Amino acid sequence: MRATLMEKGRLWVAEVPDPVPARGEVLVKSLACGICGSDLHAASHTEQFVATSREAGGAFKLTTLAPVVLGHEFCAEIVDYGPGTPRDLAPGTRVCSVPLLMRENPVGIGYSEEAPGGFGEYMVLSTPLLVPVPGGLSADCAALTEPMAVGRHAVAKAGLQGGETHLVIGCGPVGLAVIAALRAQGAGPVLAADYSPRRRQLAEQMGAHEVLDPASGSPFEGRPLPSDGRTVIFECVGVPGMLDQLFLGAPQDARIVVVGVCLEMDQSRPLIAINKELSVQYVLGYSVDEFKETLGLIADGRIDVAPLITGAVGLEGVAGAFRDLADPERHAKILVRPWDGHSGAAESS
Amino acid sequence: MRATLMEKGRLWVAEVPDPVPARGEVLVKSLACGICGSDLHAASHTEQFVATSREAGGAFKLTTLAPVVLGHEFCAEIVDYGPGTPRDLAPGTRVCSVPLLMRENPVGIGYSEEAPGGFGEYMVLSTPLLVPVPGGLSADCAALTEPMAVGRHAVAKAGLQGGETHLVIGCGPVGLAVIAALRAQGAGPVLAADYSPRRRQLAEQMGAHEVLDPASGSPFEGRPLPSDGRTVIFECVGVPGMLDQLFLGAPQDARIVVVGVCLEMDQSRPLIAINKELSVQYVLGYSVDEFKETLGLIADGRIDVAPLITGAVGLEGVAGAFRDLADPERHAKILVRPWDGHSGAAESS
Repeated sequence: MRATLMEKGRLWVAEVPDPVPARGEVLVKSLACGICGSDLHAASHTEQFVATSREAGGAFKLTTLAPVVLGHEFCAEIVDYGPGTPRDLAPGTRVCSVPLLMRENPVGIGYSEEAPGGFGEYMVLSTPLLVPVPGGLSADCAALTEPMAVGRHAVAKAGLQGGETHLVIGCGPVGLAVIAALRAQGAGPVLAADYSPRRRQLAEQMGAHEVLDPASGSPFEGRPLPSDGRTVIFECVGVPGMLDQLFLGAPQDARIVVVGVCLEMDQSRPLIAINKELSVQYVLGYSVDEFKETLGLIADGRIDVAPLITGAVGLEGVAGAFRDLADPERHAKILVRPWDGHSGAAESS
Repeated sequence: MRATLMEKGRLWVAEVPDPVPARGEVLVKSLACGICGSDLHAASHTEQFVATSREAGGAFKLTTLAPVVLGHEFCAEIVDYGPGTPRDLAPGTRVCSVPLLMRENPVGIGYSEEAPGGFGEYMVLSTPLLVPVPGGLSADCAALTEPMAVGRHAVAKAGLQGGETHLVIGCGPVGLAVIAALRAQGAGPVLAADYSPRRRQLAEQMGAHEVLDPASGSPFEGRPLPSDGRTVIFECVGVPGMLDQLFLGAPQDARIVVVGVCLEMDQSRPLIAINKELSVQYVLGYSVDEFKETLGLIADGRIDVAPLITGAVGLEGVAGAFRDLADPERHAKILVRPWDGHSGAAESS
């Protein structure tokens, strides 16, 4: 098959062997696959990413320095089944799946030589994790189930009791997913902060009640935030120093949910957090149920992901798309469509 | 009155004006007052401590660079009342109090020129915060109410549901208070780790079910710790790098309660915490109710603080005691007894 390979930041299209489904697995065509911030990290900081992933033992992250086919935010179409596998869904059925291959040691799809991701024509998936895509939903929108599920999980881990004020720091795809998840469950008020006008606009489209530009003042100043444990801050930036800034700005007893993935050593002043009795919940991924629920919310229109899709490329366009995603004014989510000819340019949709 | 003053690490005995009780306040004699780790920090890192305390706006910490009378873990005896103040407790009554003077702006007792602490002969306290010491309890043991209340509060903030395994990292006074509070409410199992044999022995005396020497292996290895959210780790060391070590060692979904006060910038790798979905609760102090409950637990023998008192000095001995406390083999808690003549040596009790 044709696939875009990544090795230590270099991205190129090559012919590679088709993946072969084992028992309990299915061969699928990748219809659309989002480019995730973690993919960008994996390319720009491969060695550090691999070292930390190995140390942490996480199945979701890159643990090899060899060339891999990235892509874990996909919608795919069933082609064939592995040996001795019940054919519950007909070939041609469109499916999403948690990007995990349930082998003896679970393998992260799109992060391992063993499980090529959605930036290639074919993938193998585990049948117990397949979720059929409801009829009316496009493959493009269904591909956003994975990043949107991250938001749903983060909100679930926040342990909201009702009555909280929610502050989302950073309106990249992760922050936008958190906003969408908060609004899908009726939470409010939701304040969202980002330096980019385009991203603040997207935050409003995802349902934020108020958007804030940190360049024109701290998100913590000029508005009353509850100091009784009912301020919940979602950190969706993931750069060193962000947590310390939140420690400084947060009101007493605030809860901070860390959803942004900071790959580097971070620095913060515990005494600030101690004086305010802050709490920090680090979160990752989502459960299989949260993933399914998210696809349902997208399908029934309670989460409208269409505004987030700002471009689409074929395999030849992946390298350029990785570069383009650096500019928050131009793009939120770029989809890779491996079967879309050989177009190299990110078309705005 | 005579008092031990501290200015940027220098400690000396001097004659200073007696404090004067205002309305709603009482003049007391300091009978016994523990030396806290925060006092040692305040002396050894005065400027940093003051800068961070000011930034965080904490009423419990030193916010002046001028000479102060430290000491916030005290038992005292009522001498006289301020003007127009109901004389609810007779002069001679022994009392404890949360170390806070309830003036228009609350003042931390033992951290301000306005409110000299227990390392002087006299203090003023706010009458609404006075808690009489039950008859049979010595002033020395009652003075440990404050540090023990820190343990009770930390355990309360951990939100235990029952069924947890508790790992206490560091068995200085803070860790020992956590162990005592866990055992006083019947929690178990309680594992406690410290490099010092003497402190491991104290941990056992406070009720730890098992003590661990980190020099002979990580506390996280060789024993099953629940990875379903039922491992609760109390960080009672408070040095940079400790949190990152806990991130590395902790099982999946562990809760970390930060009770040790790290005054410096700290470093940790968020990706490790993210991969395991760890949570961190920073805690400080205690409520007035927790303080009262703790005095009750000490008075009725459910917390036996006697083993923790490893020395006592007069005012002249404070400087030496600050030095002696650096050695975990020699001391846990040294009490200052301002009325104990002019002895300069820390007597072992």
